Amino acid sequence: MMELIESLNWRYATKKFNTKKVNPDTIDQIINATNLSASSTGLQPYRLIVVENPELKKELGEGSFNTQIANSSHLLVFAAFEKVTLEQIEDYMNHIATVRAIPVENLADFKNALVNGILSRGDEHNFQWAARQAYIGLGTAMIAAADLRVDSTPMEGFDPEKFDRLLGLQEKGLKSVVVLALGYRDAENDTFATFKKVRLPQEEFAITVA
Amino acid sequence: MMELIESLNWRYATKKFNTKKVNPDTIDQIINATNLSASSTGLQPYRLIVVENPELKKELGEGSFNTQIANSSHLLVFAAFEKVTLEQIEDYMNHIATVRAIPVENLADFKNALVNGILSRGDEHNFQWAARQAYIGLGTAMIAAADLRVDSTPMEGFDPEKFDRLLGLQEKGLKSVVVLALGYRDAENDTFATFKKVRLPQEEFAITVA
Repeated sequence: MMELIESLNWRYATKKFNTKKVNPDTIDQIINATNLSASSTGLQPYRLIVVENPELKKELGEGSFNTQIANSSHLLVFAAFEKVTLEQIEDYMNHIATVRAIPVENLADFKNALVNGILSRGDEHNFQWAARQAYIGLGTAMIAAADLRVDSTPMEGFDPEKFDRLLGLQEKGLKSVVVLALGYRDAENDTFATFKKVRLPQEEFAITVA
Repeated sequence: MMELIESLNWRYATKKFNTKKVNPDTIDQIINATNLSASSTGLQPYRLIVVENPELKKELGEGSFNTQIANSSHLLVFAAFEKVTLEQIEDYMNHIATVRAIPVENLADFKNALVNGILSRGDEHNFQWAARQAYIGLGTAMIAAADLRVDSTPMEGFDPEKFDRLLGLQEKGLKSVVVLALGYRDAENDTFATFKKVRLPQEEFAITVA
């Protein structure tokens, strides 16, 4: 637990990265942790887009006040599915059956619960729901990065339609919802690196109902 | 990193808790970690409601298919603010100024950015935004609990209006968005405890754009 608290305290929303690249194995570990995040019903209705290409990052960052988009080592784009389909639910059931080595028929009740519970809700509801699941993953990714002493900046200030177009997400039925820039802090030039972390007093953040 | 991956693999959405209570110091550590979660602009537009009272948990759980609500040791209810107000932003600026021992006037540009960026967006947009921030906290809370080998169950299947009423959230301008039950797994009676975790193959979850 000390390590987790240390990692949470170590991290901050990095404003300036240096030019050092994060090595592929480290990126892989962050992706692995993020993939292990919980999601509602386990459906994982979002994907993680990994961008390393400098020209592409530069193009994505143009016009944004977030210079970290272009200057990061890697950009992780969390993209949620625009809609949940019966096919996705069926793929998920087949995947569970394979991993657990059980007949897919055993999952009929679970499948019905998902079909009835999710498909009836409408696409916009499900997209917002999928985006929330992506934010669980974002929470994990920030912790995983910090644990590996990789700096990160979560960003909502970007043009999602431009991102979707440049990353080819529309064809995949995905829409970008939040971005995490990864890299290493330029400690000498990022004054934010030294600022004291500001969080609510615990007794204000948490309300105990007796 | 090994510890984080181990914790993520150890956890599962617990279906049956035993009667063992989580001790107050452990709950406190989970809350502390959650409070250290990042949020957009650092505003933390949500609160964590901690419910231990057995009668209240029972009442909250009535009519829900999630028996974990009543049978948990503690229930953490993540509740987002219905709207973001100028007062909240001003309180936040004053808090930053206090923590960092700087004049609040130094934060004028930051304050303006928040006022212009957030208050112009409309209450429903900001509530959905606040809910997403709460899900970052949910991600942290699940990791913190697992790290302390406390079991947890995230739940969206509850009646938010009933929760808000019974927990007195309306008066606070809060609406419950997601719940995390905490406790210890009843390993003998929870068959899910032994199931293999199902996650997407990493190459399907993460899409590398060259």
